[in-house]
Amino acid sequence: MYAQVKRLISQMTLEEKIAQLNAVPIEDLLDDSGEQLSEEKLEELLSNGIGQITRVAGGLGDPSKVDTSPKHAAELANAIQKYLKEKTRLGIPAIVHEECLSGFMADGATVFPQAIGLASTWDAEAIEAMAGVIRQQMKAAGAHQGLSPVLDVARDPRWGRVEETFGEDPYLVASMAVSYVRGLQGQDLTKGIFATLKHFAGHSFSEGGRNCAPVHVGERELWDIFLFPFEAAVREANAKSVMNAYHDIDGVPCAASRELLTDILRGHFGFDGIVVSDYDAIDRLRKAHFTAGNKKEAAVQALEAGIDIELPKMDCYGQPLMDAVKEGMISEATINESVERVLTAKFELGLFDGVYVDVDSVPGLFETPEQREMSRDIARKSIVLLKNDNVLPLSKDIKSIAVIGPNADNARNMLGDYAFMAHRSYDKTSVHIVTVLEGIKNKVLDSCRITYAKGCDIIDPSTDGFVEAVNAARAADAAIVVVGDNSGIFGKGTSGENDDRTDITLPGVQMQLVKAIKDTGKPVIVVLINGRAFAAKELADNASALMEAWYPGEEGGNAVADVLFGDYNPAGRLPISLPCEVGQIPINYNLKPASYINYLSTETKPAFAFGYGMSYTTFGYSDLSITPAVAPSAGKVDISFKVTNAGQLAGDEVVQLYIRDEVSSIVRPVKELKGFKRVNLQPGETKEITFTLYADQLAFHDKDMRLVVEPGTFKIMVGSSSDDIRLEGSFEIDGQKREVMAERRFFADVVIQ
Amino acid sequence: MYAQVKRLISQMTLEEKIAQLNAVPIEDLLDDSGEQLSEEKLEELLSNGIGQITRVAGGLGDPSKVDTSPKHAAELANAIQKYLKEKTRLGIPAIVHEECLSGFMADGATVFPQAIGLASTWDAEAIEAMAGVIRQQMKAAGAHQGLSPVLDVARDPRWGRVEETFGEDPYLVASMAVSYVRGLQGQDLTKGIFATLKHFAGHSFSEGGRNCAPVHVGERELWDIFLFPFEAAVREANAKSVMNAYHDIDGVPCAASRELLTDILRGHFGFDGIVVSDYDAIDRLRKAHFTAGNKKEAAVQALEAGIDIELPKMDCYGQPLMDAVKEGMISEATINESVERVLTAKFELGLFDGVYVDVDSVPGLFETPEQREMSRDIARKSIVLLKNDNVLPLSKDIKSIAVIGPNADNARNMLGDYAFMAHRSYDKTSVHIVTVLEGIKNKVLDSCRITYAKGCDIIDPSTDGFVEAVNAARAADAAIVVVGDNSGIFGKGTSGENDDRTDITLPGVQMQLVKAIKDTGKPVIVVLINGRAFAAKELADNASALMEAWYPGEEGGNAVADVLFGDYNPAGRLPISLPCEVGQIPINYNLKPASYINYLSTETKPAFAFGYGMSYTTFGYSDLSITPAVAPSAGKVDISFKVTNAGQLAGDEVVQLYIRDEVSSIVRPVKELKGFKRVNLQPGETKEITFTLYADQLAFHDKDMRLVVEPGTFKIMVGSSSDDIRLEGSFEIDGQKREVMAERRFFADVVIQ
Repeated sequence: MYAQVKRLISQMTLEEKIAQLNAVPIEDLLDDSGEQLSEEKLEELLSNGIGQITRVAGGLGDPSKVDTSPKHAAELANAIQKYLKEKTRLGIPAIVHEECLSGFMADGATVFPQAIGLASTWDAEAIEAMAGVIRQQMKAAGAHQGLSPVLDVARDPRWGRVEETFGEDPYLVASMAVSYVRGLQGQDLTKGIFATLKHFAGHSFSEGGRNCAPVHVGERELWDIFLFPFEAAVREANAKSVMNAYHDIDGVPCAASRELLTDILRGHFGFDGIVVSDYDAIDRLRKAHFTAGNKKEAAVQALEAGIDIELPKMDCYGQPLMDAVKEGMISEATINESVERVLTAKFELGLFDGVYVDVDSVPGLFETPEQREMSRDIARKSIVLLKNDNVLPLSKDIKSIAVIGPNADNARNMLGDYAFMAHRSYDKTSVHIVTVLEGIKNKVLDSCRITYAKGCDIIDPSTDGFVEAVNAARAADAAIVVVGDNSGIFGKGTSGENDDRTDITLPGVQMQLVKAIKDTGKPVIVVLINGRAFAAKELADNASALMEAWYPGEEGGNAVADVLFGDYNPAGRLPISLPCEVGQIPINYNLKPASYINYLSTETKPAFAFGYGMSYTTFGYSDLSITPAVAPSAGKVDISFKVTNAGQLAGDEVVQLYIRDEVSSIVRPVKELKGFKRVNLQPGETKEITFTLYADQLAFHDKDMRLVVEPGTFKIMVGSSSDDIRLEGSFEIDGQKREVMAERRFFADVVIQ
Repeated sequence: MYAQVKRLISQMTLEEKIAQLNAVPIEDLLDDSGEQLSEEKLEELLSNGIGQITRVAGGLGDPSKVDTSPKHAAELANAIQKYLKEKTRLGIPAIVHEECLSGFMADGATVFPQAIGLASTWDAEAIEAMAGVIRQQMKAAGAHQGLSPVLDVARDPRWGRVEETFGEDPYLVASMAVSYVRGLQGQDLTKGIFATLKHFAGHSFSEGGRNCAPVHVGERELWDIFLFPFEAAVREANAKSVMNAYHDIDGVPCAASRELLTDILRGHFGFDGIVVSDYDAIDRLRKAHFTAGNKKEAAVQALEAGIDIELPKMDCYGQPLMDAVKEGMISEATINESVERVLTAKFELGLFDGVYVDVDSVPGLFETPEQREMSRDIARKSIVLLKNDNVLPLSKDIKSIAVIGPNADNARNMLGDYAFMAHRSYDKTSVHIVTVLEGIKNKVLDSCRITYAKGCDIIDPSTDGFVEAVNAARAADAAIVVVGDNSGIFGKGTSGENDDRTDITLPGVQMQLVKAIKDTGKPVIVVLINGRAFAAKELADNASALMEAWYPGEEGGNAVADVLFGDYNPAGRLPISLPCEVGQIPINYNLKPASYINYLSTETKPAFAFGYGMSYTTFGYSDLSITPAVAPSAGKVDISFKVTNAGQLAGDEVVQLYIRDEVSSIVRPVKELKGFKRVNLQPGETKEITFTLYADQLAFHDKDMRLVVEPGTFKIMVGSSSDDIRLEGSFEIDGQKREVMAERRFFADVVIQ
């Protein structure tokens, strides 16, 4: 492969090389119909070849106006590849990239729960299977790279992109990310989709929760918290692409950081794929960070740092880069290095061995009953029951229900920000999206009287609908109030990319609505459909039952109904702590001991902690055994215990393993997740769980920034939540401090007997 | 001196050496009377000598029960020194340290405005003169070291200690700190008081605004923002002591950081004084940070890092340190190094040449009319007028005034957290404290009817007093509503040390009180007596005039009245931005360009910006000249302009010089203060101001952490506030990037013509 790449490069003009470092969005290749390719534009933009095509399926227009079917996307992809193969001098195919945060971002593709909901399943196998479906659908439509998953470790609920993350814990994020990457890339890269780890690095720790704002972080925390998932996904799952983050860290923009994008990523992690820019990130060196005086300087900084391809379209890497080479600002050798990587990727993806997809097979791979069932299953696994004053599950014989709230019957609002309909803000999608109202209707007896009242809008301050909603509640046996966010980008939602808030309570008058319904005295079941960690104390105080469903995707309404009526016993767990109020943040569970200074009238603890979630049954823990009691710093420890379903209903328990380093040279968190497993148990059933914790997992960066395992006592905490520890013990690491090398264990093993 | 120190050390036993690294609080030396020394305790605690005595005057008890006069403190100090000189083997006197944040923390000493108010004066000369008074009073009472000033650059208004800082800007903090240190230490150290720079370093940037919580900061920001004032105070003012901070930075506790306390402080800054621990900070390595398994380890870590003396009393540096030496955990050479520093300090202070103070002269040095006048003058200079809908100044002929609010007539609440009465929570103090009510009474004609109504408490939620307050307002020509905080420590205030809040609105029902008074339709003048940056938008919306007085000290009421009635034309400027709401923070003015991403419903700008403050007159700016237009990277630029008092009243204008580095290798702030001057102008008068800006002042830490001046264009902004720029220009630095060495310029020169 290497020889072929070298041979190709030796034949390329500078123009052809630079074209490989660029992308063209599908929109720029379409004619006025918005559906068909323009020969003229192909000629204009692709005659030197191209590195990537930006979003074919995901870039198509309004489904009510043009053909947005995956089949059509496949046709377009084929036609573009045909042009490249047949009409360009060297015939090099393009990588087509698409979005796939909660499913392939294409009209007609399966919409799964948003990432924060995926993390709430604490079920890595389910995420791998889901990513496998995404792979099949994307591959069918002619795509090769997906701009997911998001590996940012959430820290600030003001930030609109919290919904795109796997939550606040580096271990959970890394676990989900590795599974996602494995599912998306598959066993054979020529049949797989490149995963893109983003946003490298620390994007979630931005100042004030403001998107793209500077990140204030020390080197050690950067490594131990924010880089950990990236390293795991590179080393454990061979992720083939990484996307830089927009912000600067301590004054150095990620897009211009050779330390991050080359020294750490390639040098330290052993990454061998392609680095793509976040959209427009290179020009932001000029217009947001002012480290570049013009696009030429921006291009040089980014390419020298290690960004191989500029997305979404040719800008700084176009004429400015060309000029920079000609003026000697950057060497052609540096260009060649990136071109080599791009071509290598194309060989790895098998593009030179056949790039066309079978258009006729496309429809059969989308929205099959099995795929919908998978989406429903993941959605109900993602639902976190936060409070239940014995009102749930509801009986299916219930005589009347009031279904209330702005998110009770809004299909659009069931979707996260990178779902096609939400992302593009279209009113129509060809995928059927089941709302909570529909889900409830599907569930209850025909005789049940269901009254729906919207009550209010998400944002609009009008309370005109309250009377109808209150009346509906008064007349019903129970009220299900579905409130929360709507997701979108750039101000088109209350959460999502660039939708940051200073306030993390329910938007608009929704809290007032909840209180008004509560005042009826009827049981009030609040279902949250939302993206960020809400300030949840007041919410919980005003609900008989409270359920976090995040953005649950196309089968969300059925999934919620499954849980409401007990067809599914909830076991989702919070991947992020829900604060009491905005002034408490950061409030993640894994703070340092000295973080727990109480405020004058508020404790430094969240309303609901990381790992928390209720069930309709109860689980008992017993028989903790930790062996050996003393292990070497290169060793491992088996932690076994029994879990029993002590209730009357079958259900899942998410067992969680936490450690605490009792005395250490560097201040360590009060608790760190080091293993977890979602376990199904029949009533009365007992299973024995054994985690094998590797000493590698105890490592942190010492004063000299060496990754080390230190001898000493480690407390073991096993439980049902970070704040519900059921079993405690400890073990010792003896011997000398050991430096941990690149080949290390990131995750505990788990065996269930 | 060095030879004398060496000779002394050579004579000392290990016990005597270790005693020099310790302190004993006065409380531990008093007998049951609480007033007189106990011979037994002196023998028990001081027989090997002692490094320091902790708070003699400041440690005395309740003024209503014991003699707390400075004269008595002087007597006690003399008696302790006498014991040490005459009864210990080597006769080494002790350093007596005291607190002096807003004045000497002693009953009877002058109480100046709290630090945040001092910074609001933007008058460095006034601060130096004030510190001179503090020096005289402390010296008179037998003290040698003051645990001030606070050099923490404020970043989070949730933090209770914001009131102790000089605000959010490193240049302003450094300017005030250098002046304070010069005033306190004086020209001749044998007649001076050692200043103690604290808290080293970054204390103000704690996670969640929680006191002592971990600090998340990159190395570059640590240097360029948080270390800058410390370096300036060491290099420019030869500060003789530094106190470590409680927290950890990126996992390394400051108390155990040799990098901070030795490499940077001594190695880089050239500091040659003594490092003292913050109270209890060494044992916190064991009980808060868990980097030490026991007190012995804590002692070793702290001493090896560079903490010479443990405060406030012998704990880890007692028997644990002794054991550590004996067990070979730490070398006696390391002990000797710190002992040498302590003895050198004692020689520098002249303690070996005469340590007794003249007790009879003490009373004449406290609370003189000149000192009270100085306190009043600084207080009125500190008052920041935030809003004025033509209601101020009030006429002295006014017929009736309602004076309302919990801070209108509360002497205790006029004081900051390290003032004796507030700090110790005593009801009585021998210093007369003028409240706002008293100040107003002092000002108006006898015929004026003044009605006082408290209205409500600071915290208590009762609104029972509203009716009386509203009636008072209705019956008056104007209402002056005095609201805010009370300062204290450890929960005894709403601001102050360990009094952090999640909420930064007015505590309790005070905002409701303001609104109730506003509803009367009468002019409402809101005076804030408080410590943190309040969320000020709603406050401003509900006031005809709004005035920030911070904790203005003993003459605060007169100072406020001076401004209210136009006897003083206000010119104080905010040293910290006042946010619109808590969810906006951080909101300091000197953010990076990419910080300014707006939230969904809130802009990323404060209610009132850094540098803001109104006058009763108006000032015009003109004739900006910048020469040369191009300067070398080791050069300087003169920035001249004219300021004219365009109104009818004499007054001060605080002219402010900001720069922006237009393109730089590291992302730089949108604005940085680089010079300022408080200038008095008669009506119609024009003065020409010339700032000499040194290229050194443009330096920042580059990618390789070298302090450099880079060539390029620098924008010059001259104005009346960070958000009220009146004149703009620019200049170029040409040539090569230059590394700035230790001997550098920290401050601009300013000339007024």
